[in-house]
Amino acid sequence: CIILNRTQELMYGRYTQELGVYAKEEAARLRDGGGLRRSTSVRSRSAELLEYEKDPCAKCHVCTSRCQKFLISRVGEDWIFLILLGLVMALVNSWVCWVMDYTIGNGRRKWMYGGLNSNMLLQYLAWVTYPVVLITFSAGFTQILAPQAVGSGIPEMKTILRGVVLKEYLTFKTFVAKVIGLTCALGSGMPLGKEGPFVHVASLCAALLSKFMAALFGGIYMNELRNTEMLSAACAVGVGCCFAAPIGGVLFSIEVTSTFFAVRNYWRGFFAATFSAFIFRVLAVWNQDEETITALFKTRFRLDFPFDLQELPAFAILGIACGFGGALFVYLNRLIVECMRKQKTINKFLLRKRLVFPAMVTLIISTLTFPPGFGQFMAGQLTQHESLVALLDNRTWSCQGVAEEFDYISHSHAWKHPQVNVFITLVFFIVMKFWMSAVATTMPVPCGAFMPVFLIGAAFGRLVGETMAVMFPDGIHADGSVYPIVPGGYAVVGAAALSGAVTHTVSTAVIVFELTGQISHILPVMIAVILANAVAQSLQPSLYDSIIRIKKLPYLPELGMGHHEKYNVRVEDIMVRDVRYITLSSSYRDVQEVLLTGQLKALALVESTDSMILLGSIERSQLQSLLSLQLGPSRRLDHLRRHAKDNDTHTLDTHTHLSNLGTMDNPLSPPCTHTHSNSTNTSARHGVRFVVSVAEVSRTHALLNPLPQIAEWEEQQLDEPVDFNNCKIDPAPFQLVERTSLHKTHTIFSLLGLDHAYVTSTGRLVGVVSLRELRKAIEGSVTVTGVKVRPPLASFRDSGNNTTSVSEVTELHKLWNHHRGLSLPREPTPPDMEDQLDDINMYYQLRSTVITLQVRR
Amino acid sequence: CIILNRTQELMYGRYTQELGVYAKEEAARLRDGGGLRRSTSVRSRSAELLEYEKDPCAKCHVCTSRCQKFLISRVGEDWIFLILLGLVMALVNSWVCWVMDYTIGNGRRKWMYGGLNSNMLLQYLAWVTYPVVLITFSAGFTQILAPQAVGSGIPEMKTILRGVVLKEYLTFKTFVAKVIGLTCALGSGMPLGKEGPFVHVASLCAALLSKFMAALFGGIYMNELRNTEMLSAACAVGVGCCFAAPIGGVLFSIEVTSTFFAVRNYWRGFFAATFSAFIFRVLAVWNQDEETITALFKTRFRLDFPFDLQELPAFAILGIACGFGGALFVYLNRLIVECMRKQKTINKFLLRKRLVFPAMVTLIISTLTFPPGFGQFMAGQLTQHESLVALLDNRTWSCQGVAEEFDYISHSHAWKHPQVNVFITLVFFIVMKFWMSAVATTMPVPCGAFMPVFLIGAAFGRLVGETMAVMFPDGIHADGSVYPIVPGGYAVVGAAALSGAVTHTVSTAVIVFELTGQISHILPVMIAVILANAVAQSLQPSLYDSIIRIKKLPYLPELGMGHHEKYNVRVEDIMVRDVRYITLSSSYRDVQEVLLTGQLKALALVESTDSMILLGSIERSQLQSLLSLQLGPSRRLDHLRRHAKDNDTHTLDTHTHLSNLGTMDNPLSPPCTHTHSNSTNTSARHGVRFVVSVAEVSRTHALLNPLPQIAEWEEQQLDEPVDFNNCKIDPAPFQLVERTSLHKTHTIFSLLGLDHAYVTSTGRLVGVVSLRELRKAIEGSVTVTGVKVRPPLASFRDSGNNTTSVSEVTELHKLWNHHRGLSLPREPTPPDMEDQLDDINMYYQLRSTVITLQVRR
Repeated sequence: CIILNRTQELMYGRYTQELGVYAKEEAARLRDGGGLRRSTSVRSRSAELLEYEKDPCAKCHVCTSRCQKFLISRVGEDWIFLILLGLVMALVNSWVCWVMDYTIGNGRRKWMYGGLNSNMLLQYLAWVTYPVVLITFSAGFTQILAPQAVGSGIPEMKTILRGVVLKEYLTFKTFVAKVIGLTCALGSGMPLGKEGPFVHVASLCAALLSKFMAALFGGIYMNELRNTEMLSAACAVGVGCCFAAPIGGVLFSIEVTSTFFAVRNYWRGFFAATFSAFIFRVLAVWNQDEETITALFKTRFRLDFPFDLQELPAFAILGIACGFGGALFVYLNRLIVECMRKQKTINKFLLRKRLVFPAMVTLIISTLTFPPGFGQFMAGQLTQHESLVALLDNRTWSCQGVAEEFDYISHSHAWKHPQVNVFITLVFFIVMKFWMSAVATTMPVPCGAFMPVFLIGAAFGRLVGETMAVMFPDGIHADGSVYPIVPGGYAVVGAAALSGAVTHTVSTAVIVFELTGQISHILPVMIAVILANAVAQSLQPSLYDSIIRIKKLPYLPELGMGHHEKYNVRVEDIMVRDVRYITLSSSYRDVQEVLLTGQLKALALVESTDSMILLGSIERSQLQSLLSLQLGPSRRLDHLRRHAKDNDTHTLDTHTHLSNLGTMDNPLSPPCTHTHSNSTNTSARHGVRFVVSVAEVSRTHALLNPLPQIAEWEEQQLDEPVDFNNCKIDPAPFQLVERTSLHKTHTIFSLLGLDHAYVTSTGRLVGVVSLRELRKAIEGSVTVTGVKVRPPLASFRDSGNNTTSVSEVTELHKLWNHHRGLSLPREPTPPDMEDQLDDINMYYQLRSTVITLQVRR
Repeated sequence: CIILNRTQELMYGRYTQELGVYAKEEAARLRDGGGLRRSTSVRSRSAELLEYEKDPCAKCHVCTSRCQKFLISRVGEDWIFLILLGLVMALVNSWVCWVMDYTIGNGRRKWMYGGLNSNMLLQYLAWVTYPVVLITFSAGFTQILAPQAVGSGIPEMKTILRGVVLKEYLTFKTFVAKVIGLTCALGSGMPLGKEGPFVHVASLCAALLSKFMAALFGGIYMNELRNTEMLSAACAVGVGCCFAAPIGGVLFSIEVTSTFFAVRNYWRGFFAATFSAFIFRVLAVWNQDEETITALFKTRFRLDFPFDLQELPAFAILGIACGFGGALFVYLNRLIVECMRKQKTINKFLLRKRLVFPAMVTLIISTLTFPPGFGQFMAGQLTQHESLVALLDNRTWSCQGVAEEFDYISHSHAWKHPQVNVFITLVFFIVMKFWMSAVATTMPVPCGAFMPVFLIGAAFGRLVGETMAVMFPDGIHADGSVYPIVPGGYAVVGAAALSGAVTHTVSTAVIVFELTGQISHILPVMIAVILANAVAQSLQPSLYDSIIRIKKLPYLPELGMGHHEKYNVRVEDIMVRDVRYITLSSSYRDVQEVLLTGQLKALALVESTDSMILLGSIERSQLQSLLSLQLGPSRRLDHLRRHAKDNDTHTLDTHTHLSNLGTMDNPLSPPCTHTHSNSTNTSARHGVRFVVSVAEVSRTHALLNPLPQIAEWEEQQLDEPVDFNNCKIDPAPFQLVERTSLHKTHTIFSLLGLDHAYVTSTGRLVGVVSLRELRKAIEGSVTVTGVKVRPPLASFRDSGNNTTSVSEVTELHKLWNHHRGLSLPREPTPPDMEDQLDDINMYYQLRSTVITLQVRR
């Protein structure tokens, strides 16, 4: 199902070329349009002709036309697209927030505290039913409409931005499923986030908007590279809009989705994310939710002395602990998914009843968080938003006691329990939420894990902070003045560190500043985030990479720093030697065969089967159009007409049938489905002939006479050599040599976003490497659990020349010796013609470039 | 002087390979070392042998050795290097700050207000002499020690990170000159910044540290790619340390120095910049300057209502105005430099007396800022730091009146003038500082322009803010509660916008947040910065690009979006067709010739002159070592010994002379200087022979007998074919085809950091494109003033096929036709042997791959 896209760099060259052409065409169209309009008006008002010509309106008209021209030429500019994208995303975000705040999000509490607070059982039922219904609906709706909408979306975007087109992930259906499913999932109050799905939604918006604009204006919006650039900006918009954090959004999206980042795209992300965040916050102000534009989770820590220098070790320890926690979270999440997959009975059951798993998980989690029950020990009644606001509070919970002046804000009130210490509540909260989040994010609904992790991190930070506050009630500072410890600051640091550890990003630090509106804790946050990253990266892959591996997405994994064996694997070890190619002298039959047996997007064009010198690559679609041109209905008709003229028997009857025949489909499009059936060359070919025959028979059953002639004509046409004159050939496909190391190949593939590269040896095509081979080679030595398996071919080489570090570049002398031995024979051969010819032949045969054969033919 | 470095990607493949090898060697060395140590100890204490073996110390010894091993293997890790780098930069920054605060920086004020406040003339002399002396010293010192230290350093770093090695910019001399010169320049109180020089200093630190570590530990520190990665981290450290802004530093350095950014290097910058900023601030705390770690220019704006929504248009206008201002600043700066260059008399005078210009400029600027004189209208007595602190003040100057309760902070006091309004002071300040900064940054001292521009922006923002405060004394907000306007917020926005406009970066926004310690104005800042960038980028290049053009650094310019003609220029239009190459059958004489006539770092290796099939590329140094191996002293000696044995006449006498001869230099190293003289092939060759002869004659004048034999032997040796067996050959040099568009070439060159690529046509080498040709081609159509000149060859093609947009990929059919006409002759040739041979010959001759000749030989 996955269609690999064609080389980006080729696209690249065309981008602005198309722009230029588009502008010209547009101008021509407008000129025509203006002319047309004028001519119609002239025709309708031919009496007013003279007045019209003298009218000042004519000038006005020209002006309007010019304006229109200007507008249309401007419509292709990036910033218009980005503004539209930002606007749409801000609206989506506001809608989700509004729904959460005023309808489904608060529904549960309304039910519980509205009429039911007399009966505990009814309360429990209300508390539990509500999320179960929402989650089940969300899961079912997504499952039915677009199963691609399930999950975070960041792994998929990472794959798409790598250059692999996952078409079904960017459809309107997915958009609807994602937005509706996400709203319901969030409304259920489960520990789910919206940040990953927002990245996906923004990308969907960008893709759909591109399609829409392409349909309206064409030209520049058709360009694939431009769309990829816009997708990368859209990811920034997704994060930026979700947290109202433009800078953090841009950085996070870069870290999470890119390998190599083009700095010239930087401003796009900033622009779109800022605009989106701005509109989102402005809508909140207009909605009277806020007085002015401020941060989402505004903190009010003191500015003059945010933290003491001696608190830094505590922050560092917090960071390291968060690193271990983050790795544990990723591990737990993967363990749950793998458990469910491996247990065959569970797996079967889940596959049959897909809605049972989310409903069950929701039931358990809801039951455990039921506020009058176990939930009272873990602030179960609070939503994620409320919990986070409470955790980032700048008062110290433990010092000010549990009861006194502590309950004037309802959010903090939830953390207080008459019998239990605030520390125990926090520990309970952290432990329960930890596994709950890990489980909940595996549910098949659109959901992210960032926000739950962020919340757990904040709670852990708050715990450490409260502990510090108890240990040093008057602060640590030595010089007279008392600066008590601010546990809220620890919460901020913990949140950034844990989310950074889970996602392997540093930019959560920036997100945290933008979320809280305070940057005073910059150094502790940076230190903790970096330490957490260092720990987590050495233990586990990031959550998104883990999901990519679980989902088996076609993503090129990163090469770790410690994998020395990568330098022993060469392209020749991993390349596919059986390359599909066409030669300059190929017949149409060869082309048909090649098209039917392979599914590559582009085919190599070599000089001849003997020389194998690579001339370029031709796109599959080009070859298909060549073939359909040769066998197409117009040529068919021509042939039949000529045939009819020759025979001169049928007059009217045949002609109507001929026109029937003329409307026959392109004979190649249906047979393409045959390529899925793994049939061999010959059988597939027969299959095609069969299908074409069936079509012909069914359509032309009345036309008995010309059928054998057509079949004969077709055979004849297929035997003709291909005419490449009107065919687009890419003369510079990407080439590697056999000795290129895996590391270099990986770098080049990631840099240029290639999906395949030809392997040549002194100009001759000897193999092809595609993303699949590369991935296999890398994953062959890096398994998920960390056990390294060497690729089979590397071990030979390793034992041979492990003393020299330059093996990649020194071994050409073998080739040279080989040449030398042949091309400069020491013993002089007798000047006999026959011998000389043999010599030449042997030489070329050994070089496998026997071009002489072709000359003889 | 500029030596282009070799292909980065090749390096890349070797990086971790070297690491692995290094680790092995290291382990081996340790094993040997351990063995050696033990054996010596055994020898020395042979009596204690038995006790020693049983001693628990033996275990301890093993432990120590293991620890040592571990330590040495760890010393190559990145983070150790980054910590060292951060530490050094923090120390440098602290030192500069300390010198500024306690010694030279405050010297001027001390002089003026110390004993001289009775006499105005003495005061003036003190005010003027002090900076003139400092600047003159700085200019002179830099000029004498290392002229490369002049200026900002960011343009140079941009060029170096692009892959061009400007060796003399990264020496210890430059480091000393830059640090000393910068300190003096800053101490003078001129409007100069330290941020650009800090980037350079940090890079110098990284380069020197790398060299130092390479000398100590070898191995991994020798790797060029690693050093480039470290340089890129160093740039982040430079900015991050200078402003104590780690995040902004990383982003700014990415925006300013990179084209494509590898996300895997991200953490390095963050880590090093955070560490450096942390140490810098910790040193300030230990130094009792600060109570704890806070921002450099801490602001105290209100958090609850930072700005009103209706103020946003004012912020937007501020941003747009800053955009124009930024473009004007860049233009003015370039104008001054170009004026001085074009005016021949000025130019001559300045070249002769290099110190006059900075002294003169300093004199004029000092005179104008003299506080009792004109300086009283522009707060002339304040340093940059003090001015900025005053401008970011959160009180409103205009509302609270000029006199009342306004002078309790000395900094703000300076802005008050008994007769003149604060608005006039601000306008004066902005106008004067604007041209002063533009002039001052052209002085030949180490200085940056970021901080002056930042200051002007802040003043401009303050001006707008004060105006707003006067216009809306009770704030704009409609709902009852009064929130007065905060002009300090406008100052923050203005500073970010103007510096962003001048440098074409968005990350000044982040720097501003980190500098002020408040992020509450994030949306206004982002909006203003983006608008300022949009305006400035459409009018002028960034300041750094402008300097790159002025200094004519070998930097590959960016391709603008509007340059459609780029897609009509092909590699074949710009490539050098006269490629220097060596063949497999080349003699040493050919190699010598090629080495002497060209200066390319790498040479193409082709199969033969006739086939021209590219086999790989060989580094110049490899060829030199091949040649010196062939003609080297050891072989010379061998030859002479053999010769002496044959003749058997001289016994002792010759041997001593022989050993003299044996120590003779490599005959190739001195002649290399001859290649500069543009001599033709043959004359250069004669020149070499001459030089070698002179060397021989001067060194062996006593040795009369064997000289003719040596010359003869040398000639004989040079005629031998080269033995490539021990030569490192890169089998995969980067290849393009003739029809590759300039745009694609540019992308590939910037992505992979190439400095040259071979142009091949079906495996045959037809040309080479280096950075120089590419730059020429791009600059040929983009001149500084914006007038576009089309490259001469593009116009032909444009007139031919401007109707088709796919001309890049369609024209292979010509080649095909050509082939077809030859390889598949329609008329069958008689099966005559002679004819067949002729056919083959013709075929290959026409393809210019006449390999048959070689076979016949």
